[in-house]
Amino acid sequence: MDLVNIDLGDRAYRILIDENINLIQHLENVSSKSRVAVVITNTTVGGLHLNRVVGLLACVFENVRVIELPDGELYKSWDSLNIIFDSLLHWQCDRKTILFALGGGVIGDLTGFAAATYMRGIPFVQLPTTLLAQVDSSVGGKTAINHPLGKNMIGAFYQPQLVVCDLSTLSTLPDRELRAGLAEVIKYGPIADVAFMEWLEQNLNAVLAKETAALAHVVQRSCEIKAWVVGQDEKESGLRAILNFGHTFGHAIEAGMGYGVWLHGEGVSAGMVMAAELSRRLGLIDSEFVQRLITLIQRAGLPAKGPVIDVGDNAGRYLELMRIDKKAEAGEIRFVLIDGPGKAVVRTAPDSLVREVIDACCE
Amino acid sequence: MDLVNIDLGDRAYRILIDENINLIQHLENVSSKSRVAVVITNTTVGGLHLNRVVGLLACVFENVRVIELPDGELYKSWDSLNIIFDSLLHWQCDRKTILFALGGGVIGDLTGFAAATYMRGIPFVQLPTTLLAQVDSSVGGKTAINHPLGKNMIGAFYQPQLVVCDLSTLSTLPDRELRAGLAEVIKYGPIADVAFMEWLEQNLNAVLAKETAALAHVVQRSCEIKAWVVGQDEKESGLRAILNFGHTFGHAIEAGMGYGVWLHGEGVSAGMVMAAELSRRLGLIDSEFVQRLITLIQRAGLPAKGPVIDVGDNAGRYLELMRIDKKAEAGEIRFVLIDGPGKAVVRTAPDSLVREVIDACCE
Repeated sequence: MDLVNIDLGDRAYRILIDENINLIQHLENVSSKSRVAVVITNTTVGGLHLNRVVGLLACVFENVRVIELPDGELYKSWDSLNIIFDSLLHWQCDRKTILFALGGGVIGDLTGFAAATYMRGIPFVQLPTTLLAQVDSSVGGKTAINHPLGKNMIGAFYQPQLVVCDLSTLSTLPDRELRAGLAEVIKYGPIADVAFMEWLEQNLNAVLAKETAALAHVVQRSCEIKAWVVGQDEKESGLRAILNFGHTFGHAIEAGMGYGVWLHGEGVSAGMVMAAELSRRLGLIDSEFVQRLITLIQRAGLPAKGPVIDVGDNAGRYLELMRIDKKAEAGEIRFVLIDGPGKAVVRTAPDSLVREVIDACCE
Repeated sequence: MDLVNIDLGDRAYRILIDENINLIQHLENVSSKSRVAVVITNTTVGGLHLNRVVGLLACVFENVRVIELPDGELYKSWDSLNIIFDSLLHWQCDRKTILFALGGGVIGDLTGFAAATYMRGIPFVQLPTTLLAQVDSSVGGKTAINHPLGKNMIGAFYQPQLVVCDLSTLSTLPDRELRAGLAEVIKYGPIADVAFMEWLEQNLNAVLAKETAALAHVVQRSCEIKAWVVGQDEKESGLRAILNFGHTFGHAIEAGMGYGVWLHGEGVSAGMVMAAELSRRLGLIDSEFVQRLITLIQRAGLPAKGPVIDVGDNAGRYLELMRIDKKAEAGEIRFVLIDGPGKAVVRTAPDSLVREVIDACCE
């Protein structure tokens, strides 16, 4: 069993990483006074993993309830949140009720936000079943739902009690989703750890073949880096923003194409190339490093070029969407750039240069 | 200028108490980087105070926006929250935007919850214009909206940057609302400070006549007691629950009658009498103290008897509604009781005894 500690004082918690984890052996600190567990999942993940999880929880909790939502980013919504609240109130769930998020980033973010706001906060546990969720979204306490005018616009910083990364769940993960999750893994190298980038370059085939030892290292090292960043800046007043490398462009791609057309990790991949190219044009890195990143992204089967999201003024549309990004300030876009391999910096850039980068990086 | 400090580490803030406060002299620590202020108010309060507030804020902020909602508890809702989010996104408000809650408890709770969740948290300032909000709801960081199945069911603990209690706003407050606010003032005596209860007994006429010095003392002492409690238990894991004296019964009254029929403070008043009577029957206080509380409540023009909310099984309906209160655990109702004058205790009580109390205290 691999273990990563998230050190946040009275909000500290552990990430467990292994195959076939027996969840209930690790719930002592979580469930002391609760008799009710509510598992929130989607129909796809539920069909694969719900029976096992409910069976385990039934050994500990008097009452195990299930909320099964449709699958997809579309359901990370106000309406889904209301379905959760209505169910919890209908079942007379009190403040000691524990929510279990069984699924990928959508289920994790939505369940976390429900936990953050139901009766002003109840405990929750992350049971991430996708690579993306195991290496990124289930860790660090960012919870949210989407708004028609922007992704993750409504949310809260709210930490789980425990994160259980069961590598066995990745065996049923569709190939496209595994690759999309790898985008967030690739991300950690350029911003924080070039040695990890080298390891990935050497072991990518084992990861793509879902070899357990390789997956375990990918999840553990990703969580360690994220834990290190979040431990210093829980609420993204500074350093934490570096985790958004590739995300400013990536969110524009997702929003511009319509949520769900490109997967999050696919948008981030093309976005990382754009951010790297912008870094190069600002003199922060050389073209060799940009090419190295592109090669890794392409080997992972991920897009290195962004889509054209507006046939009239493509770069203008990207800029427009990036200006309403949460990280923008007074309409100024704040880019996470690479300031030499393994080091990130957050800064602005002239619109004209950003336009050139977008023109060069879309097809 | 009176001043109360809320000591919550990196979430510490000040409460300012005075007449005709020039808001902008106290915004240095709040507005350092923001250029946009959004005032959220209702049509009633807006008509009285909006021009002055917007005029002041326009001296500091490049851009002052206003969201005016209809007046009433009915609008502490999901729909109002959506109106706020839609407006903020439409105006491209970023994380540096500051919200100003100009109004009573409904506006303060709603604005606070919007601030807690817009882009995972933006700063907000409380400008309470009712006695209830000045002595209770604007202080301590409880934010929420109502759900059809329960009051304040969806919310967050989220502290404001500053609370400005301008006593001048109380001059236009309707008499019924002033009295309802006094219920929360009366509350502090039995649970924490018998000397303050004595002061109230001696100075109630000056308070009801809205004499400035009396109002200033009422607001200051109430905020001091609340600050002392919240400073020890921000998220209500223990001590803070004593502030709900009268509220368990009171919420049942509000819900049972339909929100808005009884004002919150009116429900709390009758609820305090029920809680005191329950304390007496459990042997915690004598009948003299119960009568003293009833006398003070009646002198303040507040109801000492609860309404009949179900002609069939009135006590049963009260119990049913109290079991879905947020403070209930596994269906067990946790009552805030008086354990000798000036001291509160949280405990359960047998249903049969609670039924007797309700039967004795309703008409």
